[in-house]
Amino acid sequence: MKDILILGAGLSTQSLIEYLLGNAEQYDWHITVADINEELAQKKINGNPRGKAITFDIHDDMESWRTIAKADIVISMLPAFMHHLVAKKCIDLRKPMLTASYVTKEIKEYDELAKKAGVPILMELGVDPGIDHMSAMKVINRIKKAGGKILSFNSFTGGLVAPESDNNPWNYKLTWNPRNVVLAGHGVSQFIQQGRYKYIPYFRLFDRMMTRKILDYGEFEIYANRDSLSYREIYGLKDIPSMFRGTIRRPGFAKAWDVFVKLGATDDTFVMEDSENMTYRDFINSFMRYEPNVPVEVKLQDYCENAADPVVFEKLKWLGIFDRRKIGLKNATPAQILQKLIQEKWAMDPDDKDLLIMQHEFKYQLGNERKMIISAMAVEGENRERTAMAKTVGLPLAIATKLLATGKIKKTGIHRPVDKDMYEPILEELKQFGISFDEKEYMIDQS
Amino acid sequence: MKDILILGAGLSTQSLIEYLLGNAEQYDWHITVADINEELAQKKINGNPRGKAITFDIHDDMESWRTIAKADIVISMLPAFMHHLVAKKCIDLRKPMLTASYVTKEIKEYDELAKKAGVPILMELGVDPGIDHMSAMKVINRIKKAGGKILSFNSFTGGLVAPESDNNPWNYKLTWNPRNVVLAGHGVSQFIQQGRYKYIPYFRLFDRMMTRKILDYGEFEIYANRDSLSYREIYGLKDIPSMFRGTIRRPGFAKAWDVFVKLGATDDTFVMEDSENMTYRDFINSFMRYEPNVPVEVKLQDYCENAADPVVFEKLKWLGIFDRRKIGLKNATPAQILQKLIQEKWAMDPDDKDLLIMQHEFKYQLGNERKMIISAMAVEGENRERTAMAKTVGLPLAIATKLLATGKIKKTGIHRPVDKDMYEPILEELKQFGISFDEKEYMIDQS
Repeated sequence: MKDILILGAGLSTQSLIEYLLGNAEQYDWHITVADINEELAQKKINGNPRGKAITFDIHDDMESWRTIAKADIVISMLPAFMHHLVAKKCIDLRKPMLTASYVTKEIKEYDELAKKAGVPILMELGVDPGIDHMSAMKVINRIKKAGGKILSFNSFTGGLVAPESDNNPWNYKLTWNPRNVVLAGHGVSQFIQQGRYKYIPYFRLFDRMMTRKILDYGEFEIYANRDSLSYREIYGLKDIPSMFRGTIRRPGFAKAWDVFVKLGATDDTFVMEDSENMTYRDFINSFMRYEPNVPVEVKLQDYCENAADPVVFEKLKWLGIFDRRKIGLKNATPAQILQKLIQEKWAMDPDDKDLLIMQHEFKYQLGNERKMIISAMAVEGENRERTAMAKTVGLPLAIATKLLATGKIKKTGIHRPVDKDMYEPILEELKQFGISFDEKEYMIDQS
Repeated sequence: MKDILILGAGLSTQSLIEYLLGNAEQYDWHITVADINEELAQKKINGNPRGKAITFDIHDDMESWRTIAKADIVISMLPAFMHHLVAKKCIDLRKPMLTASYVTKEIKEYDELAKKAGVPILMELGVDPGIDHMSAMKVINRIKKAGGKILSFNSFTGGLVAPESDNNPWNYKLTWNPRNVVLAGHGVSQFIQQGRYKYIPYFRLFDRMMTRKILDYGEFEIYANRDSLSYREIYGLKDIPSMFRGTIRRPGFAKAWDVFVKLGATDDTFVMEDSENMTYRDFINSFMRYEPNVPVEVKLQDYCENAADPVVFEKLKWLGIFDRRKIGLKNATPAQILQKLIQEKWAMDPDDKDLLIMQHEFKYQLGNERKMIISAMAVEGENRERTAMAKTVGLPLAIATKLLATGKIKKTGIHRPVDKDMYEPILEELKQFGISFDEKEYMIDQS
């Protein structure tokens, strides 16, 4: 018998909990879902006799100590900044830990400790990070094994709205943390192309899009992720001449979003004066010159070239940025104000379905031939709970938990799913849930 | 007899030390100049029997304790971030302290302590901050006393090169800290116009220039300073509808500098890969798309609209940004690389003279009349040591020291020179050194 403890019952936990409860009888598992909101945890258990809901607060040191001590395996679905608190306790108590979140610098420092304690800490087991690593490593290792040399690797991921629910002019709805959507791209984006390092500052990011058709889903556009360079080491591609990771949106999104960026309306570093009594129209106006005889709509088209495009202008108008409606947020940053607006306008309807889409592009040399592999995946949500996001985040994590519980993964220390013993069985089982990659190979004409 | 201790003998201390040594006999002062480099301090004393040079390191706690304990008045010309260390010791030892630097949040916390100890800490006694406060408050208080209501206040300052030494296409040379020149404007600029708060993000700052003719020096351009709002409280203008502070450059500077901003070349938040082996040409290229068949010069004109202007392009070329010359800086940020370049190209020649220029613009209502006062000042350097910067930073500080030493200023706690007892005698004496304001008043036609 094994006690599996899930910390956090928020968004994206539905498929994880369903999978573990569904397998609990067969493997003799008991699943404890622990959340600061016990009712939410109870709802996720849904009366399953193998499940139990409890109240949990990681900041209650004694209580979280006791809770973790009782478990055999701990899955942390808490907000990312809390993981290091969980990790520390798991190491001290010799409990394996799994999460879907990034290996941060802070967590990485526990690697030695975890190894010494013989504790596995398996991370980045969701989607971007997670499925992207697994599916990439599968192809990379195959090319390497055949003696190929990888020349270029692009990898794109996007959390979007499914075509049947795509009914707003932005072709976008919020399927994940809205704050992250507003702040996406802040900082400098770094990648390498033909051995040349390239840097895009935040305020040029949405100027520098590329486009792709992906699977049967039509056209998309892609902007650079902040950090493409560190993945060279993670993927064992230290000397690769070209490496680029990007985020997928529907065409036209960036050109309109860029208006907010160019205004300074996504800034999260200062509080606006008297934001509470400001209207959305005032908000936009505050970034432009004082010209009392020119309507804000006209000023905006003068100040941000993109806004003069009627397609862009329609998107902006639809969001309500010209409304004389009070924002009603005290001491708010521009980013917080913009977040409030998009949370109203880009909310998923109860019947809406989301779409998770990913594409890898590898170019490689094999003997005298140059080839390209395109490996792509699309997952649609089934309903409001069983979203594409919940499935792609929760299922690989759930499967990894099973592998660990059944002794199939034998690792200690901090790991991403870049080794065959992890990615192979996980990718294989994901197929049963409709999560699979379509792969095409092309010869590259060298003329 | 009074012992006056000057901490730091770097740039901008020449006029301060000269003034104090020049007055030492009359007032029976002894002047100690303390620097980490004793030779530099010795040079500034220049054999004057009233002066003494010593080695000083603020981080040597015991020694700086002893040095400050021996003084009657302490002037800190150390880098701004060290002032709070000096302030703490001055308060503990009951020694008055003076500096030309900004009242930071950190220092401000000593206000109560200083008051309780009966210690005056007089700050912002140089130029911007310093002479700007004094000259502004003189006009503000005069308008208020006459019953006028101030409707608008603009204040501009610039440290530039004097016309006779102005011989490069940027019409600019480095007369102060080059790092601050590269980072100028980072963050959001905030001001208020006709009761509307206005915000300019860094990457739009050099798009939003205004121009002015100042005195007989011809035309200038002005960009917004980061913080114009907090000066409302400092100047007792809490409800003023329009308040703007700006930095002065020669026309055309901003349009060319904006190219670096728009590239991301002034970023100081990340280290560039392999910066040591990069050329200046590689540096510029790294911010643009990979297009191996297009020269960097052409790409830049496509990517940054301003660069296509031949006048701008000439400035860029003159700086050497297209040169295939190695930068030779290890682990450098873009801002550090750009700083290295401008330090080579914008250096003052031994015979060059600098120019410090300032203009205040007040609009006010008096009865049924609306009036405008323009108050402007220009100071040119005499030589490499006695620069306009050294005079305008050092002389008001020196005069304030004399006022304090002779009992004319009786304050405790932290103060800027915004009260009459300080600004009146300082401004009056500055006239003897050619530092004076030319004032013009106009009626505003209300049609």
